[in-house]
Amino acid sequence: MTEPHAFREQFPVFENGAYLNAGTTGPVPRRAADAAHVRVELETSQGRGGRPYFEGLIALVGDLRAAYARVLGCRAREVALTGSTTDGVNTVLAGLRLGPDDEVLTSDEEHPGLLAPLGRARRRHGIKVRVVPFSQVADEVSGSTRLIACSHVSWVSGRVADVAALTATGVPLLLDAAQALGAVPVDVRSLGCDFYAASGQKWLCGPEGSGCLFVREDRLEELDVPWPWYASLSDPEQALEFVPAAGARRLDHGFPAGVRCAWALASLQVLDEAGWEWIHERAASLAARLAEQLAGHGLDVWPRGRSTLVAWKVADAQAEVQRLALAGFIVRSIPATGLVRASVGAWSSEAELESLVRLAADTAGR
Amino acid sequence: MTEPHAFREQFPVFENGAYLNAGTTGPVPRRAADAAHVRVELETSQGRGGRPYFEGLIALVGDLRAAYARVLGCRAREVALTGSTTDGVNTVLAGLRLGPDDEVLTSDEEHPGLLAPLGRARRRHGIKVRVVPFSQVADEVSGSTRLIACSHVSWVSGRVADVAALTATGVPLLLDAAQALGAVPVDVRSLGCDFYAASGQKWLCGPEGSGCLFVREDRLEELDVPWPWYASLSDPEQALEFVPAAGARRLDHGFPAGVRCAWALASLQVLDEAGWEWIHERAASLAARLAEQLAGHGLDVWPRGRSTLVAWKVADAQAEVQRLALAGFIVRSIPATGLVRASVGAWSSEAELESLVRLAADTAGR
Repeated sequence: MTEPHAFREQFPVFENGAYLNAGTTGPVPRRAADAAHVRVELETSQGRGGRPYFEGLIALVGDLRAAYARVLGCRAREVALTGSTTDGVNTVLAGLRLGPDDEVLTSDEEHPGLLAPLGRARRRHGIKVRVVPFSQVADEVSGSTRLIACSHVSWVSGRVADVAALTATGVPLLLDAAQALGAVPVDVRSLGCDFYAASGQKWLCGPEGSGCLFVREDRLEELDVPWPWYASLSDPEQALEFVPAAGARRLDHGFPAGVRCAWALASLQVLDEAGWEWIHERAASLAARLAEQLAGHGLDVWPRGRSTLVAWKVADAQAEVQRLALAGFIVRSIPATGLVRASVGAWSSEAELESLVRLAADTAGR
Repeated sequence: MTEPHAFREQFPVFENGAYLNAGTTGPVPRRAADAAHVRVELETSQGRGGRPYFEGLIALVGDLRAAYARVLGCRAREVALTGSTTDGVNTVLAGLRLGPDDEVLTSDEEHPGLLAPLGRARRRHGIKVRVVPFSQVADEVSGSTRLIACSHVSWVSGRVADVAALTATGVPLLLDAAQALGAVPVDVRSLGCDFYAASGQKWLCGPEGSGCLFVREDRLEELDVPWPWYASLSDPEQALEFVPAAGARRLDHGFPAGVRCAWALASLQVLDEAGWEWIHERAASLAARLAEQLAGHGLDVWPRGRSTLVAWKVADAQAEVQRLALAGFIVRSIPATGLVRASVGAWSSEAELESLVRLAADTAGR
């Protein structure tokens, strides 16, 4: 049984305030920072070349891929290493060879990281993008829908998609997992999705510029390799022939930086040791309690699901975020909605959430 | 006047051996490692969110872009931040909307980082790729040549392209600068190229996963934004409309990681302080002397240009690289050529190069 206080103490940021913005970028465990330091020193003192260096780096990359696979619930050969959720979305949308008659169905609660690649495919390849309410995506599938691309957990409201309904449509499904992987229980196999694009730097506490993409094995050959590099190929000496390497690693997004891998892996180990079940249960419970208490004080809490995000409407969201920051509470606003959003993790404390409620209620004059 | 020994002492790797592989990944200055450490600690203790954090990160990104622009000899708004030379090549090739009737002319001394994106464009878009000898690219331009894509400095031989002849053809020119930027004098304006894709982790001593792409201002609108993210757009709240942001930053390759930026910038500052003219002159002179001495001992030194690479042919290149590594000399082999390649920097010492010559001559029985 993980002890909440001991878990929280592994993240130095909490010595300095109530950091409640893992939905943007997660807190960094001390062990991950130390792994980054060790790696920087290795590269600096030993040099970044020679066979032992590259063998060590390849092993590190393999370990990271396997660690992401465990969190996703899939095989390592179904995981590509990316720099972000956006990278994963770009990989799928650029790889699927969509054309003018193809419709992609998406929701009205999507992040620019999903919408920008969709906008690009619309402009470049003439695909149709249909935007429908988050809760109605499955119902809106039509005969020309080639792909559903939407969030597993909405970054706006914290609502959770009805993935069973989405997969029941039979249409290929790309889930934006930026607010899901690490935050809520995930098993891509039982979810039944085709593509699952996640961030490494949010709920997995990895470095900026990290992430992973699950591509179900039977979908891999349908994807072009849209952004190839040396290791995308089965034989780099015959690069013009362009025979892709085996597995989803052909979609890896560029050279795997050692510092990035060491940090991401150490963070996953810290979380893994605490136990994913414990993490998900504690985070969801704390978030639910925060939502209840805010609502209990009369705040306009937005409809949400069993996730780690809690959003409430205020008169001036940006001003409220600034006011809370001055009090040591880091949250964010969601553009064009009037919402303030708090990200609650298993690392959050009951005390800081109660303080947040008092501060928020104070703004609202409750 | 920079003192060679003092310059070399800024790179800890040389305390441990003769690192001669900057053509793969450069030596790391102590100051850059320290900047990475400081940045990791900032992110760990202060958290990676809130307005001051993002304002600081945006300023850091701006400083790095300006620093790359100074090295390239262009405006900051002509620079995209990438993760590698390959990223830059992918950006141009995916952005140019090439089709079945378009020929791309390239050379027989190109790296898979250029050939893989070309192979992909051939397979996906049916472009024609014509491969001609490195020294004859300009002569081989035909009426259907839409783009020349070749190295500024060959990674195989260290020969330098006749860029004036290439630009005189009037065909758009993409230069692979992996062995050029930081290694030889570069001024993209006087070179007259349209696109210049460079690595950050080689001759600029930055972190793995860093790089830059120059896009001449008058070419920017011809390029699609092939891999968009949040900041590629002028208004992320209207992402589906897909109106690109101003300048080449629309082509930035994903979220700019703070650690990456801090390290890359500190490395550039170390090099800038030493003086680029001094760096280029010393590196070229040392490399030329190494080539002469190897040839003087009867080794089969490959024809080269005024660059930082020296390659020589041996019976078993991989075995020779291993043997030199055991003696503390890190060099590499070039696949399918029988060549051993040493990368000589301004940080190299006369003494270690003389030792390398003795070792190499010993293998050859000279």
